[in-house]
Amino acid sequence: MKDLKPIIGISMGDPAGNGPEITVKALCDKSVYDRCKPLVVGDAKMIEQAKKFVHQTQIKINPVHSVSDAKFEYGTIDVYQLDLIKDVDSFKIGEISVEGGMAAFESVRKVIELALNKEVDATVTNALNKEAMNLALEPKGMHFDGHTEIYATYTNTKKYSMMLAHNDFRVVHVSTHCSLVEACRRVKKDRVLEVINLAYQAMKDLGINEPKIAVAGLNPHAGENGLFGREEIDEIIPAINAAKEKGINAIGPLPADSIFSKMLGGWYDIVVCMYHDQGHIPVKTLGFVYDREKQRWKAVEGVNITLGLPIIRTSVDHGTGFENAGNGTSNELSLVNAIDYAIRMAKGQK
Amino acid sequence: MKDLKPIIGISMGDPAGNGPEITVKALCDKSVYDRCKPLVVGDAKMIEQAKKFVHQTQIKINPVHSVSDAKFEYGTIDVYQLDLIKDVDSFKIGEISVEGGMAAFESVRKVIELALNKEVDATVTNALNKEAMNLALEPKGMHFDGHTEIYATYTNTKKYSMMLAHNDFRVVHVSTHCSLVEACRRVKKDRVLEVINLAYQAMKDLGINEPKIAVAGLNPHAGENGLFGREEIDEIIPAINAAKEKGINAIGPLPADSIFSKMLGGWYDIVVCMYHDQGHIPVKTLGFVYDREKQRWKAVEGVNITLGLPIIRTSVDHGTGFENAGNGTSNELSLVNAIDYAIRMAKGQK
Repeated sequence: MKDLKPIIGISMGDPAGNGPEITVKALCDKSVYDRCKPLVVGDAKMIEQAKKFVHQTQIKINPVHSVSDAKFEYGTIDVYQLDLIKDVDSFKIGEISVEGGMAAFESVRKVIELALNKEVDATVTNALNKEAMNLALEPKGMHFDGHTEIYATYTNTKKYSMMLAHNDFRVVHVSTHCSLVEACRRVKKDRVLEVINLAYQAMKDLGINEPKIAVAGLNPHAGENGLFGREEIDEIIPAINAAKEKGINAIGPLPADSIFSKMLGGWYDIVVCMYHDQGHIPVKTLGFVYDREKQRWKAVEGVNITLGLPIIRTSVDHGTGFENAGNGTSNELSLVNAIDYAIRMAKGQK
Repeated sequence: MKDLKPIIGISMGDPAGNGPEITVKALCDKSVYDRCKPLVVGDAKMIEQAKKFVHQTQIKINPVHSVSDAKFEYGTIDVYQLDLIKDVDSFKIGEISVEGGMAAFESVRKVIELALNKEVDATVTNALNKEAMNLALEPKGMHFDGHTEIYATYTNTKKYSMMLAHNDFRVVHVSTHCSLVEACRRVKKDRVLEVINLAYQAMKDLGINEPKIAVAGLNPHAGENGLFGREEIDEIIPAINAAKEKGINAIGPLPADSIFSKMLGGWYDIVVCMYHDQGHIPVKTLGFVYDREKQRWKAVEGVNITLGLPIIRTSVDHGTGFENAGNGTSNELSLVNAIDYAIRMAKGQK
């Protein structure tokens, strides 16, 4: 690779949410600068304000209009300045607004552009609020369900999938945001094979030589030989066999209730999941930890990665946390995890 | 209650499986006798043999033909002797057989009878092998899908549900062993309300005064206001409202991916799950722990409880483990958990 430290473009997220403050928290960690060259993309004024929220006023902000102007030095946060919020003082933290939604969208669009132009090596996104974004976009005749669809559109990608990761615990989904009945319908050989292929390539990009790809069944006990549903027999097994013929170590279909314990035990590198909650339940049950005594979330770990794009995109796997935004308590672990996954993938692809 | 220590009837399970040996292991723990009066129901000869498997030959076996003959003293395992296996020496451990299947079935039938006659205060089941049992029963014109159906039949119960518990982490299911498409169809107001009621009663039986019953959505993000499926709006919300009208603190529908982290954080006492894997995935991901170094399961924790029966039934939540049966390595934690849940429920119901 050109440089040992990849340039990581980080979109600010909705500035009314937790994005600015967890970004400052993450970039106050010197070790992040030892591993990469972070560049925030958004509004430098909001990042300046977030310093106060998290009591890190000693950190400097360097607004730039070109990647080449960034310093990439610990102690200074470089911000690709898009100047999105008119008046910081009157902008309301913790509330849905057209201005916040548009700022989040423009930050994402710019970070995608920088990656397509190879000015950054990978992109990381903070959370946006879908309602705020579409309030801003719909009058302009646009609508996006979320980040993934923005990335697919602006990179012209048709085959993609959502991967979630919590350290070495990884899942990737055959379908995500549709009803469970519709998700059952979408379990088709071609799509399952496509997702096995995406999983295989992602593991290679992470530097895993001979990835072990486990494939979950759709039905309880993986259908118990057709007793509880035939999708395993009619669709999933043919997809696994097709993957094996291409030399991919695809294993399954396996009962979804014990497959994740086995991955935790090191049996597999990733699990191909048949629907949103099949993958999201174990990742969030393991990664989200609530502190009973302090009555707040202690850890919100996990990374959301879009597979199949021509550029690298990782993301926090939580929302904008409007209810706590501005009080400095939001946890930056998921963002740090996302930055680390982006670094690992950027190095793997070089 | 009559006695501080309830009598707990423990069915031996398939004698070719791990039941006999984990039973001996569990009953070599003196603290179990401090909490209850355990009575194994099955074949005393198989329990005698299992002592050798687990190197606990000092323990005595007391075969009885009536509960009143049991000693309930630590150091002696009382076995309600059904004399089910003809020849211990030629009986093959780790293999499916008609004799083993019938022995497992007869042990369960007897423990149910003892509970219906109030000779034991609660029942705990070891694992049986469905194939072996039905090999034995089908020539007699009988068939059972598993323990739950045996209990439902012999106690004449129509409304029941499977609860899983791992310490204070508890789930109960609207449906279990059917295809996922069929499970979606079974999400109906009346059934959801029935399961909320069963969950409420179970929490009361466990001594929880004002139980907090969380109800999961069926679809991702609990349907996001009808965007991804309408079952939440048409069936689940009406069931929750009906429960609330009866004074039950039912909360939801909540997105299934974060509901379990919240329960771990102490927000809820139980989660009502809409299908088998929605409840089984988090319980097994948390309770089944694989030891990477030793390459074997370190902990297989969790209890399976049938709600809605006129008697108490808890169970291990793993299978017969034929592959390791007889070598003494099977873990007894799930059985100890099941005994403890049975004790707690027996005390709560008095």
